[in-house]
Amino acid sequence: MERYEIRLGGSGGQGIILAGVILAEAAGIYDGRFVCQTQSYGPEARGGASKAEVVISDDEIDYPKAIKPDVLLAMSQKSCDTYLFDLKPNGMLIVDSTFVRQLPTSKALQIPFTQIARDRFGKEIAANIVALGALAILTGVVSLKSLEAAVKNRLPPSSADMNKEAISAGIEAARNILKGK
Amino acid sequence: MERYEIRLGGSGGQGIILAGVILAEAAGIYDGRFVCQTQSYGPEARGGASKAEVVISDDEIDYPKAIKPDVLLAMSQKSCDTYLFDLKPNGMLIVDSTFVRQLPTSKALQIPFTQIARDRFGKEIAANIVALGALAILTGVVSLKSLEAAVKNRLPPSSADMNKEAISAGIEAARNILKGK
Repeated sequence: MERYEIRLGGSGGQGIILAGVILAEAAGIYDGRFVCQTQSYGPEARGGASKAEVVISDDEIDYPKAIKPDVLLAMSQKSCDTYLFDLKPNGMLIVDSTFVRQLPTSKALQIPFTQIARDRFGKEIAANIVALGALAILTGVVSLKSLEAAVKNRLPPSSADMNKEAISAGIEAARNILKGK
Repeated sequence: MERYEIRLGGSGGQGIILAGVILAEAAGIYDGRFVCQTQSYGPEARGGASKAEVVISDDEIDYPKAIKPDVLLAMSQKSCDTYLFDLKPNGMLIVDSTFVRQLPTSKALQIPFTQIARDRFGKEIAANIVALGALAILTGVVSLKSLEAAVKNRLPPSSADMNKEAISAGIEAARNILKGK
């Protein structure tokens, strides 16, 4: 596997950084790949926008930040608007259609992660885990087994059942997208 | 403030990555600095050693990983042994003396973070927050107010009181070190 770059973007409180840490652990610890995971904050960080990046490779990683992301997951309109320009040509854009209503390209993959979390669990905070389940299917970059293990390792046992279902809900939504539904 | 590099090392389950995320948010979001925070995983990650790096600067950060850390916080003997060689000459070594018994230098600052967490809260997991309180005092790299805000933001409300006390315990331990006690 060559260098593969994922950028996760959203607003504060959507669990973007936790999602980055989980994805990195899944690929790095459980799948045994080389992984770098980065958060960067600048003066704009107070605005509440947050991003997390994960670079995955079968070789050692020289530069740990995303240069031209292969995938952008945008959980908010602002993060979609801000980060899209960096995306690799023919890169994959996945958006949380609960919040991202103005799509910059017709090729965006739209899944209402937050709406799913709200409907299924009554908790919007689980949207990031739903998104990770979908990301695993749509990119194939991390195994489902490893994703489940990393989610279990990073989150409290009291929410383990919900998180397992959240991954499944993301998988299901992604498979429906792939089937063209 | 010029580029300042902090490396946190420990074993899996000590909350090293969470500590890195909190420190980065404190400096980046609440103190308004430029910050990059990185986790790297390689084939050795399965061994349970973990590290997190935080680079802080008043200018934009070109290379986001630590090159020669100004500070190494080692929460385990293995992380102390593994990462010490990278430390900047005259860099600061802070160790959790609960676990780090073989000191590579007489200049190491020894605080029993885990023992403090165990004694005060009956929970070893709070050791990382005790360590952040001490780190803030010993390095001056992040304001206490910002550290408290980031801890509160990243951890569940149910543990807010304990975490506030954990920061205070770390501050106290660091001040005792500085007083030569």
